[in-house]
Amino acid sequence: MGGHLRRCKQNPNNDSNKRKITTTPTIDEHGALNSPSAPSSTGAKIRHRKRSTEAVPEVTKANGGQLLVDDKSKYKSMLIRAYSSIWMIGGFALIIYMGHLYITAMVVVIQIFMAKELFNLLRRAHEDRQLPGFRLLNWHFFFTAMLFVYGRILSPRLVNTVTSDMVLYRLVSSLIKYHMVICYALYISGFMWFILTLKKKMYKYQFGQYAWTHMILIVVFGQSSFTVASIFEGIFWFLLPATLIVINDIAAYIFGFFFGRTPLIKLSPKKTWEGFIGASISTIISAFLLANVMGRSKWLTCPRKDLTTGWLDCDPGPLFKPEPYSLSGWIPHWFPWQEITILPVQGHALCLGLFASIIAPFGGFFASGFKRAFKIKDFGDSIPGHGGITDRMDCQMVMAVFAYIYHQSFVVPQNLSVEMILDQIFMNLSFDEQQALYRRLGEILQQGFQSHS
Amino acid sequence: MGGHLRRCKQNPNNDSNKRKITTTPTIDEHGALNSPSAPSSTGAKIRHRKRSTEAVPEVTKANGGQLLVDDKSKYKSMLIRAYSSIWMIGGFALIIYMGHLYITAMVVVIQIFMAKELFNLLRRAHEDRQLPGFRLLNWHFFFTAMLFVYGRILSPRLVNTVTSDMVLYRLVSSLIKYHMVICYALYISGFMWFILTLKKKMYKYQFGQYAWTHMILIVVFGQSSFTVASIFEGIFWFLLPATLIVINDIAAYIFGFFFGRTPLIKLSPKKTWEGFIGASISTIISAFLLANVMGRSKWLTCPRKDLTTGWLDCDPGPLFKPEPYSLSGWIPHWFPWQEITILPVQGHALCLGLFASIIAPFGGFFASGFKRAFKIKDFGDSIPGHGGITDRMDCQMVMAVFAYIYHQSFVVPQNLSVEMILDQIFMNLSFDEQQALYRRLGEILQQGFQSHS
Repeated sequence: MGGHLRRCKQNPNNDSNKRKITTTPTIDEHGALNSPSAPSSTGAKIRHRKRSTEAVPEVTKANGGQLLVDDKSKYKSMLIRAYSSIWMIGGFALIIYMGHLYITAMVVVIQIFMAKELFNLLRRAHEDRQLPGFRLLNWHFFFTAMLFVYGRILSPRLVNTVTSDMVLYRLVSSLIKYHMVICYALYISGFMWFILTLKKKMYKYQFGQYAWTHMILIVVFGQSSFTVASIFEGIFWFLLPATLIVINDIAAYIFGFFFGRTPLIKLSPKKTWEGFIGASISTIISAFLLANVMGRSKWLTCPRKDLTTGWLDCDPGPLFKPEPYSLSGWIPHWFPWQEITILPVQGHALCLGLFASIIAPFGGFFASGFKRAFKIKDFGDSIPGHGGITDRMDCQMVMAVFAYIYHQSFVVPQNLSVEMILDQIFMNLSFDEQQALYRRLGEILQQGFQSHS
Repeated sequence: MGGHLRRCKQNPNNDSNKRKITTTPTIDEHGALNSPSAPSSTGAKIRHRKRSTEAVPEVTKANGGQLLVDDKSKYKSMLIRAYSSIWMIGGFALIIYMGHLYITAMVVVIQIFMAKELFNLLRRAHEDRQLPGFRLLNWHFFFTAMLFVYGRILSPRLVNTVTSDMVLYRLVSSLIKYHMVICYALYISGFMWFILTLKKKMYKYQFGQYAWTHMILIVVFGQSSFTVASIFEGIFWFLLPATLIVINDIAAYIFGFFFGRTPLIKLSPKKTWEGFIGASISTIISAFLLANVMGRSKWLTCPRKDLTTGWLDCDPGPLFKPEPYSLSGWIPHWFPWQEITILPVQGHALCLGLFASIIAPFGGFFASGFKRAFKIKDFGDSIPGHGGITDRMDCQMVMAVFAYIYHQSFVVPQNLSVEMILDQIFMNLSFDEQQALYRRLGEILQQGFQSHS
């Protein structure tokens, strides 16, 4: 998220206090924020007062302002967040190393947690008890959506994986042919189930839940289907955007932590312009540099066309071909490094970085607004110091959709479209049909050639 | 809708009375239903009493029950409905005759009306006044969805239409290449607009509206995108399902009107088992017969691959080839007609008929439940005697989605998939890429042939 200091977990009653912080940024008010959180706060208040008069007096004078959030608890909160973050980043790196299928599995697990958090959010416990099978229906729709989305994305890869066994190949091919009809039948049976279990006096609640279930599935699957599609286009197109959001989050946190003075948006009182701008610059620079590093690994740049986990080898195309670029004239002659290599994909990386730092934060604002509207603090409590999985995913979602569409619109047409249509031909057509297509194509191209010349 | 008698427009306060009808079906209660609707009701009550003791006494005795709704106003209501229906069916027939583009335009108009009805439904007038540009945002999302959905469906046809002009062709092709990115940019700008116009104390209302807007767009565009896709596959695949729903509606109305005794579902008190079963049988028979008639017209069976309105000629494929079928042995020898011709597509028509009469009515139940949940009588008042456009579209929507998926899963693979991939090739690839594809395909097929033999 752009330019923010996350709300600290230590303040259970911070919602009303937090508004005070943005409007009346005096030290006493800041100290007051912590008073409910027990003995240590007095000490914190004193030390905090000392710090703000000693350590940053020039800044205070120069800007006529103060750090937006500035007390001891923020350091404690940062430690907890940092600890969780390191674990998450480490796990993430391991999964990236393990490959496409494991990354997909990770996305699915995140998805299940998100759906769980969101389903729980809008449910009233006492009304549920009168509706047996109500949770089951939600999960029925969830797994229908899952079958639909992943079936579409993974089926061509599944076909490619089983080509060696003719019986399995035919079985899988025919299952895929009826994929849409199977998903539709599942959906319609859920729809009928919903209607047949409508209970008098609960209509409004039930219809509301039905609508929310759909919204939740759109949010959860909209994101992850784009994510998984990107993964198989080459991990690069998943890893770079996801990393940029993490970098933007962390940079915004750090810049906001040390320099945050000017409130950015009313929706998230702890987000600051300083954090936002610092994060934007860091993200765009990181994008350019990371693309140069990531773009050299075939593990990251090659698309995967089956569902195995073996090593990848391919010609990653001109986008990933290093081009030497002389630095002489820019740097002194005695410097040993007179040439660097640039990958053309670094230009695309700049666009991704720009989006990750300017537009994606709106995903975070949206989530903040949503939480504010429904008076909740976090979507869940799965990650210490961060909140729920959903809290960590808000900007990732916006970014994942953009990254996929950007890739499809500006990257694919340059080098992959012929291969994609070939994939389609071998996935959808029987051997006879493939022959027929080849003949027809030959005829038409022949005519086209005659009419052109 | 399956087996129902529609609520009459003449009874403005019928909601509480109607429940009485289903639970206590005595004649006096029925008369009481009409008492608020002024002078004529007294006469109606008398004549009605007379009719129910004279005209249908055997039925009353035999079944131990009575017609579920039985008073004079139902005849008046039927006349109004019949009059509107004839106008609608006539207009519909004219539009079918005019062709694909006009049918598409009709779908778009219906869509706009539906969206308008639904947007109005969940809006609170006084809260809107504090949110300038709020309606505009809804329509912004509407037109974004429209551009997205119709862009996808119509773009290959648009390309085929402009092939004669090379400049226009290149312009259109490149616009289509960026279609997804344009739609995404429009959506994201709406999303940011929404976030930046969030107003304190209105958060909950605004987020609720945002969610509903999305639900409405899914309902409206989910239906119509499938409809329009079907139209261009051949009007047959749009006209037959739509007609079946209309027939099922009318038959359910008539059967319910004359024989309706046993309530079908609590959600719609006027729907009866008699109407449901009578309509099912009528619909399935109609499906079989209509497919035989419609399947003989090339105007209805040929797919359209451009956006012109000229006459269509094609080989409609084996599904529409009449097969002679001897009736001798089934009918007496003196009968002049000893042979009929059956089209294979009539088998598919039976499936469509089955769905239209058994599953599609759930669309109607859903709409009834929704109206009940939010305590509204109709979605609008555009069509006299019927309610809003949305009221007439509930089952059409469920049917349209099914018809398209059925067509894609069980009809297309038999005769059209080669043509579809050819379309894709000429739409997406440059001339050089087409050549490259042809060479690659030849190589791969050669290898496949060697490994197979």
